[in-house]
Amino acid sequence: MKELVYHRQLLPSLERFHDREMIIDGDYRSTHGEHVERVFRLAHALKHDLGVERADRFAVMTLNGHQYLEQYHAAFLGAGIINPLNLRLAPVELEYILFDSGARVVFVDAWFANVIDQVKTAAGVETVVLVGEGDAPHDVKYEDLIAAGAATVPDEPEEDDPVILMYTGGTTGLPKGVLLDQRAEMLNLYHALMQWHFDETDVYLHQTPMFHAASMGGVLGIPAAGSTSTFIPLFNPEQVLDVIARDGVTTTVMVPTMIGMLLQHPSFSPEKLASLRTLTYGASPMPVALLEQLLALYPDLGLYQGYGMTESSALLTSLGPREHREGGPLLRSAGRALRGVTVSIQDEEGNVVAPGETGEVCARGGMYMREYWNKPEATAEAFRGGWYHTGDAGYLDDHGYLFLVDRVKDMIVTGGENVYSVEVENAIATYPGVAQVAVIGIPSEQWGEAVHAIVVPAEGTTLTEDEIVAHAKERIAGYKVPKSVEFRTDPLPLSGAMKILKRDLRAPYWEGQDRGVG
Amino acid sequence: MKELVYHRQLLPSLERFHDREMIIDGDYRSTHGEHVERVFRLAHALKHDLGVERADRFAVMTLNGHQYLEQYHAAFLGAGIINPLNLRLAPVELEYILFDSGARVVFVDAWFANVIDQVKTAAGVETVVLVGEGDAPHDVKYEDLIAAGAATVPDEPEEDDPVILMYTGGTTGLPKGVLLDQRAEMLNLYHALMQWHFDETDVYLHQTPMFHAASMGGVLGIPAAGSTSTFIPLFNPEQVLDVIARDGVTTTVMVPTMIGMLLQHPSFSPEKLASLRTLTYGASPMPVALLEQLLALYPDLGLYQGYGMTESSALLTSLGPREHREGGPLLRSAGRALRGVTVSIQDEEGNVVAPGETGEVCARGGMYMREYWNKPEATAEAFRGGWYHTGDAGYLDDHGYLFLVDRVKDMIVTGGENVYSVEVENAIATYPGVAQVAVIGIPSEQWGEAVHAIVVPAEGTTLTEDEIVAHAKERIAGYKVPKSVEFRTDPLPLSGAMKILKRDLRAPYWEGQDRGVG
Repeated sequence: MKELVYHRQLLPSLERFHDREMIIDGDYRSTHGEHVERVFRLAHALKHDLGVERADRFAVMTLNGHQYLEQYHAAFLGAGIINPLNLRLAPVELEYILFDSGARVVFVDAWFANVIDQVKTAAGVETVVLVGEGDAPHDVKYEDLIAAGAATVPDEPEEDDPVILMYTGGTTGLPKGVLLDQRAEMLNLYHALMQWHFDETDVYLHQTPMFHAASMGGVLGIPAAGSTSTFIPLFNPEQVLDVIARDGVTTTVMVPTMIGMLLQHPSFSPEKLASLRTLTYGASPMPVALLEQLLALYPDLGLYQGYGMTESSALLTSLGPREHREGGPLLRSAGRALRGVTVSIQDEEGNVVAPGETGEVCARGGMYMREYWNKPEATAEAFRGGWYHTGDAGYLDDHGYLFLVDRVKDMIVTGGENVYSVEVENAIATYPGVAQVAVIGIPSEQWGEAVHAIVVPAEGTTLTEDEIVAHAKERIAGYKVPKSVEFRTDPLPLSGAMKILKRDLRAPYWEGQDRGVG
Repeated sequence: MKELVYHRQLLPSLERFHDREMIIDGDYRSTHGEHVERVFRLAHALKHDLGVERADRFAVMTLNGHQYLEQYHAAFLGAGIINPLNLRLAPVELEYILFDSGARVVFVDAWFANVIDQVKTAAGVETVVLVGEGDAPHDVKYEDLIAAGAATVPDEPEEDDPVILMYTGGTTGLPKGVLLDQRAEMLNLYHALMQWHFDETDVYLHQTPMFHAASMGGVLGIPAAGSTSTFIPLFNPEQVLDVIARDGVTTTVMVPTMIGMLLQHPSFSPEKLASLRTLTYGASPMPVALLEQLLALYPDLGLYQGYGMTESSALLTSLGPREHREGGPLLRSAGRALRGVTVSIQDEEGNVVAPGETGEVCARGGMYMREYWNKPEATAEAFRGGWYHTGDAGYLDDHGYLFLVDRVKDMIVTGGENVYSVEVENAIATYPGVAQVAVIGIPSEQWGEAVHAIVVPAEGTTLTEDEIVAHAKERIAGYKVPKSVEFRTDPLPLSGAMKILKRDLRAPYWEGQDRGVG
């Protein structure tokens, strides 16, 4: 029997919670029953009106909303392979991805209709479906499609049917399509739900962009638990604060940058987040200072850190509420491998290194992607030796806690020493008045690379290079202390997933030079 | 990759908890590292000294102890298929099972060495391994085997490698071997751990017999969570009370009969069970009166009900702490299908019946057995229409809660009406002074079957038929009220899994007559 398919999660939930409110999206409301009926109609229309078969790809480029959830669920019920597009993509990247994925149908909202229209012919797109309101180029309107579809239960897919094609590479090189199947997504969900627990009393806020793997718990786990989903189109601190208070949101996923923005926002007051039972963060390093501020404000909040990547359907490790309450050095850890996931730290030759020694974080588990789409060599390279190579540098302690020290590519080699940029950032972030900091390697005749810090002071604050350097010197070894500090007033550039784009920060310094590691 | 195998659970746990105490078994203590080393040695010896290959069966007939855990873990690391034997088996049944399973090696302790010796030649057993102390017939001593084995990590099995052959049928007909593979057991574990949560601070008491599927959470889940395991050889209320208090046991699994015995025991006092965080019960109906007594005594205890069967690697549904605290009619429910499990109530033609209507409980999920060993027809019959047929009668409410009304075979057909014996038992059990009650159908010229109650009064109590009938009349419809009541002073006969053996109770009444449903 074919049990590791989303049918077996969503349809029992439908029977159980049929009349219960499931979606709050602006003025739009729906029950579980109404939602699933729309998904059935969409799945039917994809096949019969748009000619999308189960192995065909369809792309989505919209802000967050209930329709995005419908499109994911249609794919998971076997209507096709969903290809969610990063909202920050430039036209040339979009054209490349759509051509590479072979998606002939694209769901788009009024925000992105023009950029899709620009590239559609060259990318081979045949049908643009306009989601929501607005006047924008399109071939079919989403609601007409739903109205035309029949509400019949689609045939159940197989475990090894691919279901998501998600492109990575927002921060490095040419995007690669990560092909994930039903089994991988279901196992990731199981691994996660042995650590995170949701039930029908939960209300989840979608504000992390829904094209991102970090949304998958919200996309797949929340609906099947009978929980309610609420949405904001795009992260906006004021709106997040308002919606959490308005809808009694109990759980959400944020990147650390978002959490920082919420707590620093002028309209923030502690009771605005009081309904949160759990908060999951991840995708980039969490400054310990911010974590301690959060723990002090909300001692009963269940904090989870998740670490993973698109290739692993999202999750490898987690740090749970108990460890957060223990505090201390564990707060710098990314937690332990989830049940079902094995993490191993390896040197460049693939040897496992001892606890405490830094190497490349490698992992295996049933939740890994099938392949990089049409890239057998990249796939083989990523899985060399039977282990997925994450590109992150880190170590395990004696009790299996993973400490990430840096992206391998963000590590700075200075005077023959390895300096992990995150460690330097953590040292600087604790200085009062530092709103954002990024540390990069810049070319140096003397050192090969020199440690360089870029600091954004909090509004109304003036900082000096001497202060920053003196503060860092008290906390980290001399060779790790920045050789130079630069101040900026604009926020640092962020990827679509709100990670600081260090590649962009490095680029002007390295123009015409090869850094070797990218 | 082959990820749904126990290697991927146990070995990461070994690295994480290597030096942590894992086993408390009388005077015997071991850490996770020491335990796994013994498992490696046992796996090695099974192959190299006893000639057991991965697809060969080895049997176990011992009381609970750390060695049983070692034997399970050796099987799960790929050393063979473990065939755990019910301790209540008569020699003729033992001979049948050992012959049918083809086990040529049997692990036995001094309690059961003689019965095995009696049947060994006829059953084709070649090697009897004596576990523990005592003077009893044997070929090899367990500790010699362990000492001889090399502590090398066994080759990893495949997901579809069978790992357990467990015989059912203690209460009905000829025993059937249930063949379970790594994947089924791992998925059952995942399904369970999305509902139950253990970590390294937990202490689990093995007092449910370890040959029983209800032990599998303790056998597989607990060690991989880094928790501690403690053992008593065989259920004994006084010893359970003492060990829970002595070792700070936080969690265990009991059948309702055991819980009743604990609370009624002269040496019971509430603080003896105060260390329990969670208590799981199942395997037979829980009298609501007992549940309410337990909830009143321990308002913070996390009560779980589990419902399942050997064929499903154990679990189909669960009722969690939240529902227990809600109380009311939900206390009579077996809970909802675990994630990954689908439950469906079907009529005799395989049609799904409406919520609230009683039919046969059917289920599917990745945790189901591969087959009844060498019984393709019984396998096909059990899975007819793609659903496993449990033989239990029940209904689902509008929110997916399962209410078991009876074993289909224990249902009484009287004057054309269906009477579920459990409902009558629940009505009688609330009468003061009733220690045990079983309701069966006995032959009746007038009614076809007549409802007959067998009551064991509490010590020092005298009850009359009129009292019992009057009490029942106030609670259930007239046609369900017993036509006759019989009083016994001896406890009712229990199966090895401590279910009341209604077949044995019925037998004297039906001698020479065919009841139709067994």
